Amino acid sequence: MSWIDLPADSPFGPDNLPLGVFRLGDEEPRVGAAIGDQIIDLAPVASAQMLDGSQLFAQPSLNDFLALGRPAWSATRGWLLELVRNENDRDTVEPHLIPQSAVTMQMPFEVADYVDFYASEQHATNLGRLFRPDSEPLLPNWKHLPVGYHGRAGTVVPSGTDIVRPSGQQKAPDAAAPTYGPSQRLDIEVELGYVVGAPSQLGQPVSVDAFEEHVYGVVLVNDWSARDLQAWEYVPLGPFLGKSFATSISPWVVSLEALSPAAVPLPPQDPPVLPYLSGENLKNYDITFQVFLNGHLVSSPPYRDIYWSPAQMLAHLTVNGASLRTGDLYASGTISGPERTQRGSFIELTWAGREPLLLDGKEHTFLADGDKITITAKATTPTGATIGLGEVAGTILPA
Amino acid sequence: MSWIDLPADSPFGPDNLPLGVFRLGDEEPRVGAAIGDQIIDLAPVASAQMLDGSQLFAQPSLNDFLALGRPAWSATRGWLLELVRNENDRDTVEPHLIPQSAVTMQMPFEVADYVDFYASEQHATNLGRLFRPDSEPLLPNWKHLPVGYHGRAGTVVPSGTDIVRPSGQQKAPDAAAPTYGPSQRLDIEVELGYVVGAPSQLGQPVSVDAFEEHVYGVVLVNDWSARDLQAWEYVPLGPFLGKSFATSISPWVVSLEALSPAAVPLPPQDPPVLPYLSGENLKNYDITFQVFLNGHLVSSPPYRDIYWSPAQMLAHLTVNGASLRTGDLYASGTISGPERTQRGSFIELTWAGREPLLLDGKEHTFLADGDKITITAKATTPTGATIGLGEVAGTILPA
Repeated sequence: MSWIDLPADSPFGPDNLPLGVFRLGDEEPRVGAAIGDQIIDLAPVASAQMLDGSQLFAQPSLNDFLALGRPAWSATRGWLLELVRNENDRDTVEPHLIPQSAVTMQMPFEVADYVDFYASEQHATNLGRLFRPDSEPLLPNWKHLPVGYHGRAGTVVPSGTDIVRPSGQQKAPDAAAPTYGPSQRLDIEVELGYVVGAPSQLGQPVSVDAFEEHVYGVVLVNDWSARDLQAWEYVPLGPFLGKSFATSISPWVVSLEALSPAAVPLPPQDPPVLPYLSGENLKNYDITFQVFLNGHLVSSPPYRDIYWSPAQMLAHLTVNGASLRTGDLYASGTISGPERTQRGSFIELTWAGREPLLLDGKEHTFLADGDKITITAKATTPTGATIGLGEVAGTILPA
Repeated sequence: MSWIDLPADSPFGPDNLPLGVFRLGDEEPRVGAAIGDQIIDLAPVASAQMLDGSQLFAQPSLNDFLALGRPAWSATRGWLLELVRNENDRDTVEPHLIPQSAVTMQMPFEVADYVDFYASEQHATNLGRLFRPDSEPLLPNWKHLPVGYHGRAGTVVPSGTDIVRPSGQQKAPDAAAPTYGPSQRLDIEVELGYVVGAPSQLGQPVSVDAFEEHVYGVVLVNDWSARDLQAWEYVPLGPFLGKSFATSISPWVVSLEALSPAAVPLPPQDPPVLPYLSGENLKNYDITFQVFLNGHLVSSPPYRDIYWSPAQMLAHLTVNGASLRTGDLYASGTISGPERTQRGSFIELTWAGREPLLLDGKEHTFLADGDKITITAKATTPTGATIGLGEVAGTILPA
C-alpha cells in the first residue's frame, strides 16, 4: 500500500495518517503526519509541491488547519494518501521523513472550550452506586440527555506531561470538618475526545446531521480525577478541583475519515430520545482501549456500545444556541464495559479501593507516586484492519 | 483634577481610567481608556510619546497588556493618571479623544477559562430553598470552600449583544418525561468578574497573598440562566446548557488599583477556613449594583458583604495545581443581599415566579422576549467618592 517501510504492528498504517505537532531539536514546532514510526514533515513537502496553504503546516498548532472545515480536510486527506501511496512522490517526501523517536510531540491544537460528557451507561451506573449508594444509580435525566459539564481547557496537556498529585479539601463521611492535603484517591478516566474544527454561530444549534461538518477527528483522553476532592466539592455545581488539575490527550489526531471504516450503528435507545437527538445514521466507533499501569495491562474498555453517540453529544451541547469554536474538545466520559476487566477508572476497577488489583504480588488501588499510566486504543474494521489512535501517557509526581 | 471636561455624574472620573477595546467605523479595533464620556485612543498617544510597548494598545484585545503583570500595570496606570492630570500633556492627548458615542465597544479580552463561583451566602441560601425545598438550604461544604464550576468561555459576549432565548430539555416535577422547547424561565445573575492577567505554572498553587500579582481588574457580569433547563440537567455534574448559551460582560475593565480605595475588610468567617484560604488582609469591595428591567430599577445588590473574598476564590481555584492563563475570568456568582430589593436574579426577586414584580401595571416574573436588562455598578470610597464600573446590557430575542 505504501512505498514507506512500515512495522507490521504499527498503529499508523497508510490509511490512518493522523496529524500532530512535533518539535525537532530547537526548531520551531510544526505539523506532521504519522506514518509507521516516522513523521512526514508536511510544511516542506507542501511547499516543494507548491500547494496553496503550505504555511498552515508551519504553525505550532493545528488550529488554522482545523478552522478550514470538511472540504479542505478531505482534500488534505486525499493529498496525504497520495503522498504515501504514490511511488512518484517518494523523491519529494523521503527527505522529509523524521523518526518519531527524534522529536518531542506537542499539544496538537489549542483547546478552546473543553466539555466532558458521561456517556457510558456502565460507568454512570458504577459511579452512581459508589457516590450515592442509597439511591438509584442512574439518575432520571441520564437516558434523556447526554449529561455533561465544562472542564478546564487551560490544563489539557499533551501525553508525556508529568502529573503533580493535586492537593485540596477532602472530608471523610464521619469527619466533623474537612482537612487539607494531597489527594489519596488519585484516579484516571479513559475517554475518547472529539476535536471540533469548524466553528458555528452563536444562537444556532448544530444538528446531529452536521456532526461531520464540524468535528475533524479524535484523540485519546485521560481525565485525571481526584476522587476525594470531587466527592466533597461536587454538590451542587459539579466537579471542579477534582478534575481541573490536568487532562492528558494523545498527540495524534485521527480524522473521522480514517476512522469511518470502524463505524458501527448506535444501539437502540430506550426510552426514545427527543427529536433533536434523533437521526437515521447515528454511529459509534468500534474502538478498544487498553490501560497499562506501570506496563501491566489492567483494563480493556470497549467504546462501541457507549450509550450516546458523538453526534448526539454535539447536538446537545449546542441545542441552547451555544456556539462552537475551532479547538473545542468534547470527551465521551469514562468508558466502561460490563466486565470488571473493562472498567475505565480505578474507582471502578477496585470498587472504591475495597477490591485491590494484584500486580507483581503488590496490591494497587488508587494511583501511587511514580505510577505511570499508558492508555492505547485501536479501532477495528469489519475486515479486521486496525486504525491505531496512538497512546496517552503520564506519570504521577509527588505533591 | 483633569483638564478634560467631565460630566458631574460620570462613572469614569480621572482616578478610574478603565481599559477597553473599541472600534471606530471600519478602523481596526484597539485599546482605549475611558474618561468621562470620551475615550483616549492610547496607541497614537503612546506612540507620540515614544513609549516602549505602544503597539500593545494597537491590539484588538487587552491580552498582551494583561500578560505583562503588576509592575507594568502600575507603570501604565501612572502614565494614564499623568495624561489626564497634566496640562502639559493636553496637546498630545486632545487630538486622540474620541466620544464614546462614536464607537462600538468590543470584547475587552479573549477569555481563556471562565469559572463561576457561588460566593454570596444569601444567594446560595435562596437557591437552596428553591431548588431543594426539602433539605438544608446551605450544603455542608459551602462555608468550607468557595463552591465553583467551569462555564463556557466561548460564549462570553460583550455588553449590547442580543441574547437569543435558549431552547432545550425541561421537565415539570410531575411530568413523566421531558419536553423540548424554548426556556420559560430565562433569568439573569448579577455578578462581579475578576480578570486574570499574569499566568501561573501548572502544579503550583497561587496563595491568597498573590491575588494582586495575578488579577488585573474587574468587569460586570450577567450570567444569563435558563432555570428550567438547569433544574433538569444539573444533577450530578452541575449546570451546563442552563448557562452556556451566553454570559455578558461590561466592556471596561476597572483596575484593582482604581478600585482599591473602595476595599473593605472581609467579615469574619465562621467556621474558620483552612490555612490555604486564610490571610491577614482579605478584602472585599464596597460596590453597589443596580439592575434595570426595561429601564425600571428592580434591584440593588450589595457586594461588600459577600462571603468569599476574590483572593480566596483564586487560591481555591489553584490549590490543586491548576494553572492560570492570561484572560482567565472568574466571577463571584450571583450577588444577593438580605432584602428582597437586593436580590441578584429574578428567580429570587419573584420567588420562582410566585411573587411577580409589578412594573407599569404589568406583572413580571422571568424574562419575556424583548426585555432589556441593564446592570450598572459603582464602588464607593470612605470619602464618598465613587468609581463607576459602567454597565452590561442585553436584550432578549425570541427563540
